[in-house]
Amino acid sequence: MALTFCCLTFAVDPASLQDFCVADSNSQACKNPAWVQANDFSFSGLHNPGNTGNPFGSAITPVTVAQIPALNTLGISLVRIDYAPWGVVVPHYHPRATEIITVIEGSLEVGFVTSNPDNRLISKTLQKGDVFVFPVGLVHFQRNVGHMNAVTISGLNSQNPGVITIGNAVFGSKPDISTDILAKAFQVDKNIVQQIQGKF
Amino acid sequence: MALTFCCLTFAVDPASLQDFCVADSNSQACKNPAWVQANDFSFSGLHNPGNTGNPFGSAITPVTVAQIPALNTLGISLVRIDYAPWGVVVPHYHPRATEIITVIEGSLEVGFVTSNPDNRLISKTLQKGDVFVFPVGLVHFQRNVGHMNAVTISGLNSQNPGVITIGNAVFGSKPDISTDILAKAFQVDKNIVQQIQGKF
Amino acid sequence: MALTFCCLTFAVDPASLQDFCVADSNSQACKNPAWVQANDFSFSGLHNPGNTGNPFGSAITPVTVAQIPALNTLGISLVRIDYAPWGVVVPHYHPRATEIITVIEGSLEVGFVTSNPDNRLISKTLQKGDVFVFPVGLVHFQRNVGHMNAVTISGLNSQNPGVITIGNAVFGSKPDISTDILAKAFQVDKNIVQQIQGKF
Amino acid sequence: MALTFCCLTFAVDPASLQDFCVADSNSQACKNPAWVQANDFSFSGLHNPGNTGNPFGSAITPVTVAQIPALNTLGISLVRIDYAPWGVVVPHYHPRATEIITVIEGSLEVGFVTSNPDNRLISKTLQKGDVFVFPVGLVHFQRNVGHMNAVTISGLNSQNPGVITIGNAVFGSKPDISTDILAKAFQVDKNIVQQIQGKF
Amino acid sequence: MALTFCCLTFAVDPASLQDFCVADSNSQACKNPAWVQANDFSFSGLHNPGNTGNPFGSAITPVTVAQIPALNTLGISLVRIDYAPWGVVVPHYHPRATEIITVIEGSLEVGFVTSNPDNRLISKTLQKGDVFVFPVGLVHFQRNVGHMNAVTISGLNSQNPGVITIGNAVFGSKPDISTDILAKAFQVDKNIVQQIQGKF
Amino acid sequence: MALTFCCLTFAVDPASLQDFCVADSNSQACKNPAWVQANDFSFSGLHNPGNTGNPFGSAITPVTVAQIPALNTLGISLVRIDYAPWGVVVPHYHPRATEIITVIEGSLEVGFVTSNPDNRLISKTLQKGDVFVFPVGLVHFQRNVGHMNAVTISGLNSQNPGVITIGNAVFGSKPDISTDILAKAFQVDKNIVQQIQGKF
Repeated sequence: MALTFCCLTFAVDPASLQDFCVADSNSQACKNPAWVQANDFSFSGLHNPGNTGNPFGSAITPVTVAQIPALNTLGISLVRIDYAPWGVVVPHYHPRATEIITVIEGSLEVGFVTSNPDNRLISKTLQKGDVFVFPVGLVHFQRNVGHMNAVTISGLNSQNPGVITIGNAVFGSKPDISTDILAKAFQVDKNIVQQIQGKF
Repeated sequence: MALTFCCLTFAVDPASLQDFCVADSNSQACKNPAWVQANDFSFSGLHNPGNTGNPFGSAITPVTVAQIPALNTLGISLVRIDYAPWGVVVPHYHPRATEIITVIEGSLEVGFVTSNPDNRLISKTLQKGDVFVFPVGLVHFQRNVGHMNAVTISGLNSQNPGVITIGNAVFGSKPDISTDILAKAFQVDKNIVQQIQGKF
Repeated sequence: MALTFCCLTFAVDPASLQDFCVADSNSQACKNPAWVQANDFSFSGLHNPGNTGNPFGSAITPVTVAQIPALNTLGISLVRIDYAPWGVVVPHYHPRATEIITVIEGSLEVGFVTSNPDNRLISKTLQKGDVFVFPVGLVHFQRNVGHMNAVTISGLNSQNPGVITIGNAVFGSKPDISTDILAKAFQVDKNIVQQIQGKF
Repeated sequence: MALTFCCLTFAVDPASLQDFCVADSNSQACKNPAWVQANDFSFSGLHNPGNTGNPFGSAITPVTVAQIPALNTLGISLVRIDYAPWGVVVPHYHPRATEIITVIEGSLEVGFVTSNPDNRLISKTLQKGDVFVFPVGLVHFQRNVGHMNAVTISGLNSQNPGVITIGNAVFGSKPDISTDILAKAFQVDKNIVQQIQGKF
Repeated sequence: MALTFCCLTFAVDPASLQDFCVADSNSQACKNPAWVQANDFSFSGLHNPGNTGNPFGSAITPVTVAQIPALNTLGISLVRIDYAPWGVVVPHYHPRATEIITVIEGSLEVGFVTSNPDNRLISKTLQKGDVFVFPVGLVHFQRNVGHMNAVTISGLNSQNPGVITIGNAVFGSKPDISTDILAKAFQVDKNIVQQIQGKF
Repeated sequence: MALTFCCLTFAVDPASLQDFCVADSNSQACKNPAWVQANDFSFSGLHNPGNTGNPFGSAITPVTVAQIPALNTLGISLVRIDYAPWGVVVPHYHPRATEIITVIEGSLEVGFVTSNPDNRLISKTLQKGDVFVFPVGLVHFQRNVGHMNAVTISGLNSQNPGVITIGNAVFGSKPDISTDILAKAFQVDKNIVQQIQGKF
């Protein structure tokens, strides 16, 4: 029985075992290197603004292994974010990547919170051309603090960084987390918890 | 200038480079292996119940590298948790470790939430002798669902797993995250956000 | 020809590439995350004593990826060990994990031996609530030194720690290691080697 | 003697052992987390064009651990590159990072060469908003193929990716590589080798 | 769609997850451990001189996972190199391995070049019994400086170290790199570039 | 207090963070790259036979980070072994490295034992030019089966592979492992255990 499971995972060199391993959508193997093409390594359209017409006033355009199959095994991705005036990327974290962000247009308030017991907020207002770092696994956010649209581009050191949006995870899970657990967690009445859960 | 920083971090073998490296509190080097003692590898008192007389009704007793200096570089730790009747360990995550938990006494509701976009809650009520897994980086919680005290012991695969408690990070940071960011994140009025922030 | 083999192993991020990868016993892929269930993450019965009615007076109850398929890729496992009075877990090592052990009931002598050239025995008698660390790859053992049954729970930082029991590996291999090699290794007559081999 | 050297390197968890480890220029330790500041995580000026008035017609503006001390241990960096019309980033490779590049302005021919025995050139002309990947360790280049300035931003998955420029390494080393080795390597007369070496 | 690709790569323990994983040429799984044989772990003929009758006067005999399927996941390989008098292994690098070389017969000039901006050549003439190290990712070369044949054996810390031969990658790619890029890279006229490209 | 220990270990890139880090015997930092010399990367004398005039009839000449300081962080080492006729390298294992061995002179019986529960002996008689693999962490041995001296050279994928010699660890530790533990482990009388312990 142990054998059945042993074969799903393999020990590895600390670095790649081949030049690259383009994800083949028809199998679980690397695409034959003789058949890869430049298009397997590319993506178009990152200059196009995302649609910020939503309650948060922000739009995410990711470029991960889902967009570029050659990113498979290579440990990197990009993301463009557009922010309407006062648009927000609400508190979230990436379980598998540090993010380094640079402001292409506009002004942004950004910040992250360190782990317990300190829970320090380290924040800064960024201008065009500024760069900031959100360490892996820490809760962070961005907010457009200008009257113009803002744009950022970030590098993240995973082919699939993952995102956990705090609000969604805690108040919007399916099914709901028990009301009294959240009431204790946020030190509020259960009816406020239910009210918030109702909106997600 | 690059040189100044280059030397803080080193490339490594995927496994230990020596039998062990007992943390020496007087220096940044490993303790001379000839001087290590059995006590460097041990800790006492994990059978003692923690004090659950707090608003959460739970108590954490960690055994990490801070308690056992020999855990340095070895990638493992333990934690005992005590739960008063209906006591809760509120939603949190460990950025650097998966947790495998077993119930020594009592009955617990436990659960974790998967990442976006699904945000599925995977939960279960555990009885004495049950074991459950909280994957690294995912938000999880435990709640005593019996009228008796409960006790769990967990293994975590880091010498220093870290903990981010959602409530503390989001509503209790110092300084506060801007009210309107949290209002958008939780889809509530700013005065409710301020009310919650006031309690942390 | 190189291509045939290249595809068995992949370079990886230093952390998980997805929330989890529940081992699917019918394929070599991860189970579709939409189909995983709480039971994939759990195991029952760790409170049950193992049967110590054997020559060693000890019983091992492992909780690894073979028992919990969700442990696949998550790098952690637990084990419960029961010891009859004076029961022993004979010298062995785990090639892929450090072990952190805590005594739930009873008193145990435990120890491990450092590598050549020192071969120091680092040992200690543990009481209920004591915790001890056996570093990865080092030979270690446990012995019940009380007149009561003893119980321990350990965390190990691999989904499949592996175990090499010295006696079995050296005197009980199939086929046997040549008698004269073992005679030189243990500095005894060949007939003593054959006598020991006969018992395994 | 072995001990002297053993302590320079440590085995590690596959992920960070703390939230972050801001490089402290006065010591080899992490800066005390209580003293870190937002400025330790930031850099300004990436919107400023570099000076392309050089024989290659290109300018590199790196944002690595040398510019942002908080990148220490976090495994990511950014770089902006400016290209005058027909400017070139000559063939080079990064021994420690994959690069994901996006075109902010202009049109670029980019390409990389796979390893022996194939030595395939995989190349593409990129327009504004296109993204391309240069796998770790492979020789690659970029060339502005338009009459306007071009600008790119890249993410690289190392705090210190390193760069080996082929021409510099082979013909510009100090001291020179023996002429007859290079004559054989490039299948040219020694006087051509010496001529090229003279220019570096 | 992300799911399609997610399953090609897995997070892993920093060390092996089983004793070994012999590459099975008929599938992408490990060979059943009960069926592996000593021959899966062995190779014959490394004492045989390679044929140095070629323009470089050298011959490479690799022993990697392509020759020994059991090397799969184990992170090591060997290579024997024969050198005719004045034979050369032209400048090249291994993207995935450090090489430790020892001279079995003869005298060799060896060297490697550090990364930008220094481009230092670190070189030495080795005699029989000398050992030297070429760090991962750096350009290096060997040349027989005696009137006799020379032989070396090297260990490399990857099952598939890879090799990028500078001349082949830069002047011998298929298709060619644009002439004017190489003219800028090596600071020579385009006709010299074309002349060199013609020979590859 | 946690802080005191946190700084001993650092998270790392999966690959080197600099070209190399030559161990500096006067400090715990890397030697300034501008001061490294070719001699930091080299060792002489591996062609010299070791002295096999000892009870085992074998001699080990290691080339690890203790002999070549530049091996620090590079994950590789070599070892030469000499065997008198019928000389033996008794059962042992390397906790941190796989070994790939090649026979330079003579004929050797070699073998290793897989982990529990199988304990299969996988063995083979090697001739000059044969290559064999001992997977990391498994007990293995070599024996000269010819009437001539034999010589092997091995590559190991750690700068400091470590060695645990079974006889020394189990019967030769200081202080001794309790007699009755070993009596149970090897299923012999305590007086035989004491007899063996007396010889170590």
